[in-house]
Amino acid sequence: MTQRKLGRGVAIVGAGMSKFGAFPDKTSRDLFVEAFKEMRASIDKGFDPEIIETLYLGNYSSDLFEKQGHTAPIMADAVGLTPRPATRVEDACASGGVALRLGVLAVASGMYDVVLVGGVERMTKLPTAEVTDTLGSAGDTLYETPAGFTFPGFYAAMATAYMHRYGMTPEHLMSVAIKNHANGALNPKAQFGVSIPDWMEQRVQAALKKGKPAPTWKSISDFLHDDAANPMIAYPLRLFDCSPITDGAACLLLVAAERAREFTDQPIHIIGVGQASDAALHYRADLTTLRAARVAVQDAYAMAGVTARDIRIAEVHDCFTIAEVIATEDMEFFAPGTGFKMAQEGVTARDGAKPINTSGGLKSKGHPVGASGVAQTIEIWKQMRGEAGARQVKGDIPLALTHNVGGTGQTAVVHIYERKG
Amino acid sequence: MTQRKLGRGVAIVGAGMSKFGAFPDKTSRDLFVEAFKEMRASIDKGFDPEIIETLYLGNYSSDLFEKQGHTAPIMADAVGLTPRPATRVEDACASGGVALRLGVLAVASGMYDVVLVGGVERMTKLPTAEVTDTLGSAGDTLYETPAGFTFPGFYAAMATAYMHRYGMTPEHLMSVAIKNHANGALNPKAQFGVSIPDWMEQRVQAALKKGKPAPTWKSISDFLHDDAANPMIAYPLRLFDCSPITDGAACLLLVAAERAREFTDQPIHIIGVGQASDAALHYRADLTTLRAARVAVQDAYAMAGVTARDIRIAEVHDCFTIAEVIATEDMEFFAPGTGFKMAQEGVTARDGAKPINTSGGLKSKGHPVGASGVAQTIEIWKQMRGEAGARQVKGDIPLALTHNVGGTGQTAVVHIYERKG
Repeated sequence: MTQRKLGRGVAIVGAGMSKFGAFPDKTSRDLFVEAFKEMRASIDKGFDPEIIETLYLGNYSSDLFEKQGHTAPIMADAVGLTPRPATRVEDACASGGVALRLGVLAVASGMYDVVLVGGVERMTKLPTAEVTDTLGSAGDTLYETPAGFTFPGFYAAMATAYMHRYGMTPEHLMSVAIKNHANGALNPKAQFGVSIPDWMEQRVQAALKKGKPAPTWKSISDFLHDDAANPMIAYPLRLFDCSPITDGAACLLLVAAERAREFTDQPIHIIGVGQASDAALHYRADLTTLRAARVAVQDAYAMAGVTARDIRIAEVHDCFTIAEVIATEDMEFFAPGTGFKMAQEGVTARDGAKPINTSGGLKSKGHPVGASGVAQTIEIWKQMRGEAGARQVKGDIPLALTHNVGGTGQTAVVHIYERKG
Repeated sequence: MTQRKLGRGVAIVGAGMSKFGAFPDKTSRDLFVEAFKEMRASIDKGFDPEIIETLYLGNYSSDLFEKQGHTAPIMADAVGLTPRPATRVEDACASGGVALRLGVLAVASGMYDVVLVGGVERMTKLPTAEVTDTLGSAGDTLYETPAGFTFPGFYAAMATAYMHRYGMTPEHLMSVAIKNHANGALNPKAQFGVSIPDWMEQRVQAALKKGKPAPTWKSISDFLHDDAANPMIAYPLRLFDCSPITDGAACLLLVAAERAREFTDQPIHIIGVGQASDAALHYRADLTTLRAARVAVQDAYAMAGVTARDIRIAEVHDCFTIAEVIATEDMEFFAPGTGFKMAQEGVTARDGAKPINTSGGLKSKGHPVGASGVAQTIEIWKQMRGEAGARQVKGDIPLALTHNVGGTGQTAVVHIYERKG
């Protein structure tokens, strides 16, 4: 398979997302309309939605979450796109990133100049046990889930394999959660927009308010080791190692690069795309890396003509803290077996050498699974344009990357972004 | 929106499908492997599956039918494609046709030369009532299904509206079923590969074998009006007006047109594609036509530079007999309000002026929903290459069309095929 270039360039000229969280009164269409409106408002030079030619929608399972199939035309209709083609794309939690990639190919194919890419998932309507089952069905339900595996179990297996091989401890994983909550605290769209120290303080205040004895944690580490405050989910993963169940939607407007300046003077170009698949977890020889992510990023780097060193910031798929550690290695930012140290040493912090998940990541921003891949790109869009507010990374961001994973790595999709001029 | 051409030509060079039917012992992967093997064997000059660069998989709801999400990489792995990108596409019963369209765009984009397009659905594992609910979720579950609509109900509403406006009777619809079963009787892959007269004879023989009085139908019409033999499902649609619940899979190999002769001397070129969306049924002003189908076909004709008159044969989405009548009008083969007469007069028969559903259609061949759009193309492939056996249409077939519908027409996708040279 020879490396190919896209037929023509593709740029992002608008981006918007709903608030992420638990919204019992909102349907998927409400969330999607919220994201669409913000996207529309983000387009510097204004635009008429009539020019949108098609929609690619990432959605994992409206079927199971809402008993609604055929979601794409419903979302298209909700934002006035009828009768434009509307296509739902599903690759588990990578659905949003794969929808983006299809949007890129559609523009590159010459068929379309203006493409809407969206992602949506409404998860909190279902009881938590059913959400767990629904997410579990992204594993192999012929072999894995009947053996008792849930998603935290899958990633716990990766974490213990990694600990065994490289000497990582649960404390290293906690440092990822601490960082991502610190970032999310600065993101007004985040589901848990609160740092872990503030979280601890809230718990103390809540106890005092009820006249109960206040917890006496001496440190963040103390809090994170408290089985009541941070219960074990699947060893070594505790509650704060896991991303939450979330409702949310996100939208991007893609256009042919040569038309980008009609919409904004600050387009963000997509210069590399990569996607790969893998067998289910139980077939794999190595649980400490995702082969699909490695293949996807190599394709994306080759297409973009850049290396990991050139990437200034990245949003990676931290559905669990261990997933972020592995992702930073799979993206070739750090050597195998060193990602956990980099997290603990602050290299991946907002002011570190390689800021990772400045949005708060799936961990703190929330993880409406079909929307997450699209929302990652929105953070890149904001950071590259200098619009990330209190969490803005200092200095220029000429190149950035997103890494979105489906299941336990049966799908991985990577995009590389460039701010030109 | 200006009409655009694809960046480069796309051709089909291989095609295969599983037997359609009810297979309690087969999983989706078994069915998909069966289709893949036949596709592989169909490639005249042979090929190494290693050169396949990506998979687009049409699947409506493995989530609900099999409690399996993230189906695409599982199917990819089952046929040895790991780590190639694998993407599931969902637009209800149009999922297969939309997967084909994405494959076309992927080749046209310049990213890929060799793309596998597949479709699969395993439906019969679920109890019939749950299948009905699952199919119903392709309607609007916020407004339509809570009001009591099932899929036969949706199409029954279209049928009564059509009867009211144009004077069609249930007998006209029966002529569609009679024709499609006559075609399906010649298709070894069909779920119900039996003509209605043979069906009647089988019923007589079965009764005699049990020592019961044999039915005394005097004609096909007599049989089709027998409430026991052909019960009413939703007026005016009886059992024989409805496509069945089916397990099945289908595969196509697409390549860049300039490489087609590496694989076969009889490639089939895709020269027109169109897709459109619509609001749910309850929003529509007119139930006697599908707006999405009309928009899709106009785009496809414009791209191909042909008209309805040029199309020699077509496979259209006959999930119900009324759907075929409307489809033949939406594709502009016949004027509005005349399709039912054309069916009754034999114009759409295999030896008629405009043969429709020579495969037996969804009605007789079966309707594994995510695979149907791909299987339609397989019939076109066979007919255009002169490989349709006993059901081969006489004479040359330079141009053909497929029409695949999702839901009640919230999605429609049309492809136009040319046999060059």
